[in-house]
Amino acid sequence: MGVSDCSDIVGVLGGMGPAATLDFLHKMLEATPARSDQEHVPVLVASIPQVPDRTAAFRGEGDSPLPALLASGRRLAEGGAGVLVMPCNTAHLWFDALQSALGLPMLHLVDAALAEAVALAGPAARIGLLATDATSAAALYPNRTPAGSALQWVMPTAGEMLDAVMPGIAAVKAGDHARGGALLQRAADALARRGAQALVLGCTEIPLVLDAERSPLPLIDATAALARRAVAWSLARRAGAAVAIAD
Amino acid sequence: MGVSDCSDIVGVLGGMGPAATLDFLHKMLEATPARSDQEHVPVLVASIPQVPDRTAAFRGEGDSPLPALLASGRRLAEGGAGVLVMPCNTAHLWFDALQSALGLPMLHLVDAALAEAVALAGPAARIGLLATDATSAAALYPNRTPAGSALQWVMPTAGEMLDAVMPGIAAVKAGDHARGGALLQRAADALARRGAQALVLGCTEIPLVLDAERSPLPLIDATAALARRAVAWSLARRAGAAVAIAD
Repeated sequence: MGVSDCSDIVGVLGGMGPAATLDFLHKMLEATPARSDQEHVPVLVASIPQVPDRTAAFRGEGDSPLPALLASGRRLAEGGAGVLVMPCNTAHLWFDALQSALGLPMLHLVDAALAEAVALAGPAARIGLLATDATSAAALYPNRTPAGSALQWVMPTAGEMLDAVMPGIAAVKAGDHARGGALLQRAADALARRGAQALVLGCTEIPLVLDAERSPLPLIDATAALARRAVAWSLARRAGAAVAIAD
Repeated sequence: MGVSDCSDIVGVLGGMGPAATLDFLHKMLEATPARSDQEHVPVLVASIPQVPDRTAAFRGEGDSPLPALLASGRRLAEGGAGVLVMPCNTAHLWFDALQSALGLPMLHLVDAALAEAVALAGPAARIGLLATDATSAAALYPNRTPAGSALQWVMPTAGEMLDAVMPGIAAVKAGDHARGGALLQRAADALARRGAQALVLGCTEIPLVLDAERSPLPLIDATAALARRAVAWSLARRAGAAVAIAD
């Protein structure tokens, strides 16, 4: 256990929410070229959803999720994960604190999504962002715009956040996918009207209800982007290749 | 970490195959009455599919899966799981060895499925079984028939195992759900013709392609039965109730 310097095991710090974690794991399976069980990528998952609400913590209205995130990260490290990923955008507000406390390499969801956004829409595209208000207010996406690109961001208005995005995400977490999908599609339509050329799904609940067919714009699914990056990391590690971990 | 005597965390020893593990985790979500992330059951998952093929090992044609199963079980124990479940029927041939080596309580998939079979079809019903040839040859299901019941078993013939059940399971593992579903439905139809009154899906790949709509008989999904038992265990543990663990 714990020989993480040569482990090809992907540690998934999940549970935020549990359905989004399963969506991420499905997307890892889809991203893996495998003809048998044994060819799939090994994963350890901590889906321990008793993490204080990330958005409430950012607003100063609830406990910090950091102690719970650290506890889950330590479970994965002790279990032998060689790298950590977090299929939750908002939790990335605590990414740097986690990485330095855990001493394990981590793959950043926003970097994975932005690389796919630039590849899909070009380095100067107008990108719409659907995310929690904490992810948006902390400028998690704009702050990590890749070097050499000049993405412009089209964000929901305060009213759209209040009336569509946040209640849409809450409806998905409560299992009401019909209501969540309708609210989030309305928010996506507003971004398209204001000139967005592509849309980042920057909260892992959103791709559960908004797919390419329902979206008015080409999509960058941050969950899928991180899944592809995690699979590539593990396959490269298994092949013994040197892996450069961004950040 | 590791205070498993009071942990309500369900440890899932998975990866056999990875898609079956996700199916199990989905069925745990479906079995949980939750309105928010935090109300869901905490799980640690080791989906490390580099486990030698269980059926080949039983036939004497491959390595024992026990060392790999033990390694995954130890990762979960060190991560703090309070109970272990294995969403793989054939791996239950090594259940007793695992439980005594790990010293953690484990919930037995076959016991969960048989309790639901008796509840659905009665204690003297004729039950059809679709399972790997190792699960069938080891009499994993008949040997655990609950006390006070007298279930009769309707098994596939050797030809049906060779031509339909085993290639059907292999097709699912290789991602060819259309072919897998057609082969397994043919096997189910044969059991119905020979008088089975209900059908146990005794391999976790099978419910991925055979559901109530496609089945000629009422179904007992062993994966779902274990998921319900695992959720009940965790909620009872969280509530501080004394939990009697069968076996």
